[in-house]
Amino acid sequence: MTDFPSSDLDTPNAAAVAVLAALQSALGESEVLVGAAISDKYLRDWSGKRGEMPLAFLRPRATEDVAKALAVCHTHQWPVVPQGGLTGLAGGAVPSAGAVVISLERMSGVEEVDHASATITVLAGTPLQVAQEAAQEAGFLLALDLGARGSCQVGGNIATNAGGNRVIRYGMARDLVLGLEVVLADGTVLPMMNKMVKNNAGPDLKGFFIGTEGTMGVITRAVLRLHAGVTGANTALIALPDFNSVVLLLRYAQQRLSGLVSAYEVMWNDYYRSATTAGGIRAPLDDDYPLYVLMDMQSAEPAGNADRFDAVLEHALEQGWVLDAAVAQSQSDADDFWALRDSVAEMLDSYAPTLNFDISFPISQIGVCVERLRQIMDEMFPDIHAMYFGHVGDGNLHVVVGPLPDDRQQTQREMEEAFYGVTRELGGSVSAEHGIGTHKKPYLGHSRSQAEVDLIKRMKCALDPKGILNPGKIVD
Amino acid sequence: MTDFPSSDLDTPNAAAVAVLAALQSALGESEVLVGAAISDKYLRDWSGKRGEMPLAFLRPRATEDVAKALAVCHTHQWPVVPQGGLTGLAGGAVPSAGAVVISLERMSGVEEVDHASATITVLAGTPLQVAQEAAQEAGFLLALDLGARGSCQVGGNIATNAGGNRVIRYGMARDLVLGLEVVLADGTVLPMMNKMVKNNAGPDLKGFFIGTEGTMGVITRAVLRLHAGVTGANTALIALPDFNSVVLLLRYAQQRLSGLVSAYEVMWNDYYRSATTAGGIRAPLDDDYPLYVLMDMQSAEPAGNADRFDAVLEHALEQGWVLDAAVAQSQSDADDFWALRDSVAEMLDSYAPTLNFDISFPISQIGVCVERLRQIMDEMFPDIHAMYFGHVGDGNLHVVVGPLPDDRQQTQREMEEAFYGVTRELGGSVSAEHGIGTHKKPYLGHSRSQAEVDLIKRMKCALDPKGILNPGKIVD
Repeated sequence: MTDFPSSDLDTPNAAAVAVLAALQSALGESEVLVGAAISDKYLRDWSGKRGEMPLAFLRPRATEDVAKALAVCHTHQWPVVPQGGLTGLAGGAVPSAGAVVISLERMSGVEEVDHASATITVLAGTPLQVAQEAAQEAGFLLALDLGARGSCQVGGNIATNAGGNRVIRYGMARDLVLGLEVVLADGTVLPMMNKMVKNNAGPDLKGFFIGTEGTMGVITRAVLRLHAGVTGANTALIALPDFNSVVLLLRYAQQRLSGLVSAYEVMWNDYYRSATTAGGIRAPLDDDYPLYVLMDMQSAEPAGNADRFDAVLEHALEQGWVLDAAVAQSQSDADDFWALRDSVAEMLDSYAPTLNFDISFPISQIGVCVERLRQIMDEMFPDIHAMYFGHVGDGNLHVVVGPLPDDRQQTQREMEEAFYGVTRELGGSVSAEHGIGTHKKPYLGHSRSQAEVDLIKRMKCALDPKGILNPGKIVD
Repeated sequence: MTDFPSSDLDTPNAAAVAVLAALQSALGESEVLVGAAISDKYLRDWSGKRGEMPLAFLRPRATEDVAKALAVCHTHQWPVVPQGGLTGLAGGAVPSAGAVVISLERMSGVEEVDHASATITVLAGTPLQVAQEAAQEAGFLLALDLGARGSCQVGGNIATNAGGNRVIRYGMARDLVLGLEVVLADGTVLPMMNKMVKNNAGPDLKGFFIGTEGTMGVITRAVLRLHAGVTGANTALIALPDFNSVVLLLRYAQQRLSGLVSAYEVMWNDYYRSATTAGGIRAPLDDDYPLYVLMDMQSAEPAGNADRFDAVLEHALEQGWVLDAAVAQSQSDADDFWALRDSVAEMLDSYAPTLNFDISFPISQIGVCVERLRQIMDEMFPDIHAMYFGHVGDGNLHVVVGPLPDDRQQTQREMEEAFYGVTRELGGSVSAEHGIGTHKKPYLGHSRSQAEVDLIKRMKCALDPKGILNPGKIVD
């Protein structure tokens, strides 16, 4: 990769002046913001990390403007940082010093809902919630959903392969993308706006841009697959004796309910107690069970599915996999159960400053993993509280640890080394859904072999030979 | 790409002698078959196309042998053709003259079914049916299914991104692959045996080998996702007045049945008549309706779902989308209905020699497409019979045309030009599920832009700089 000119922006060098002039000439002077005209909000993402001052900030209105901007930066070999809604947690969209930032926020809007094909076509800067609502109005479900839905953008969701609560049934963002329009580093536009589920006319190029955090190309439009609309859910909060029972219930429920389980959120006792004490959430079940599962089955006919859903729980009670269960009798009940899972935000406050892990494992390893992590906490950090929970139906474990002591950085480093060490040993991933960005770059090698990292770099060189796209993110 | 030495195998040149010697040294003499020791069956795939005589034929027993063979060929810049079960229909695995063929057939076996993680780990040469049966014994469904299940291999299914009958519910082969082991052109082994649904630790490298027909690397092992096992299906044969009704029924059924439709096979009248006359299949409904749909809903509880399934058809009858319907009351009924759809083989005989199209379209375009193709047949080929059918739930249209006249090649070229011309105009794909191989290479540009084709070549050069992997397939 390339060493970029260090950018002392108070006395811009000749190269920077040339880039600015070329951008102004290509896009119009008013379209190129610099210095104090760049709002502070574009300098940080939801991880709180503050970036450096960019050379210029662009908000193109059309794909051709993105192409022009990239062509200029390619010619001048100048770094570019693409930005979506800046809700990421890995630093992937945070500006590096002196870069040209391209925000997609003005390229927003639903272009089409194709009812026959069950697809929605959107511009990359469209907020996820806007796309969800357009799908719902047409009777469909845009299955991607995450807490940041009001702020995050579809292009950013795709660039980071966003996950969320419904992955167990509908997959990751990747699984919903049928077509993409991408601008390559040199400004070439790739029109890959496929609407077909079946298309084997050559390699699936679009897949290579998904989850690459803006390092391989800039996503400008997308065709997403829509699923059948749902009218509600059957929801239960379930207490279980051990992790093996969590697995047995999951597999039994999936089989009996024909794969319709749409959320299977596991909370270990420490999480449940924290949520119902520090978090202030009502406890629908006693707080002394080892594990809790929030199970949800969305469908067109929740009332018609109630007997089947209850029968699964009854069987699990008989088998001893389940110790107690509360089935939601109303939307209000279901909201209460979900409040437990959604109380993470409150707990992040209560235990601040926290360290938050987003890791994944083969489901068969998760029970062992939590035991190992607890042992680490007991031995190395006995005074720090840890809460374990996650989208276990798809292998995703979250751990919130806090409050961190004053020597925060030292503790953080030790804890990351220990946790990611367990991740490596058990064949897990150091990033389940948040991506690598800059925050997890030191640990990429814990989940990927050297041969894989070498190949990532080789592909990067093929797609972006001058290394201008989001340099320093994912790999060096 | 590289020009390989022309190989007059009767008088092998010095380079060929050196390659053979190096392979024998690396793998052992008995492992390198040449000349008459190479069975004729490895020279052709199910399209009937006969390839050329290879220099050598290898059947490695382990990944390290694949790696050694590729390292030799890479060093000597010698072409390699990877082979699975040779059931492809696009010529992708057919040997080119003088190549080294690597068959995966001895690397066969199920390594593990992980019940907790719902995954199966197999060697690439494992027949699909063997993997399906191992999944079923463990209570799961390996959802990939196609007619060639007994002969095709999982590695080949992944290399060609196989489709089949259940794509509407479970997706293509790509959607079932969680992890892969791949050997690169230079012999480097990429261990990407991920078991997690959620893993965002850097770019999804494995995805780039799926559907690339052996041109980017050789797949040696795979982790596949398993779905919940099913115990049976609700099945109906349905008569409809027009294509718009086909779409309305599809969307209504998917919504009411919460996405559980597992097959939605459409047969136009000409297909249905041919199947029930030339094909000799019993006709459960009169043969004068414009369109027929075979709709299937697999689940854990077909009896419990019967009322819901019937209610969908009743509503559709009331709306006028459906003119008549027969609901299977037994497995025997369901088998009869499926015999209609599966009678393609008999019809290929009755109308031989045939030309068979495998194209896909946005579902919204399929009605128009069939009208256009019929017009072409009427105007250009009035004496040739055409039958339209397909997995319309996922956009896939098949057309069988025959018998072709004696000047077969001229007619074939004219018909392909006309059909693929319509495909291009309507935003379709020249290959829905069969791939490009050599047969469809002339038409790749009908479905992909020049920028995309250029990028395919760029990626190929990055992964296989000497161009040794399956040269001449997909692109030149």
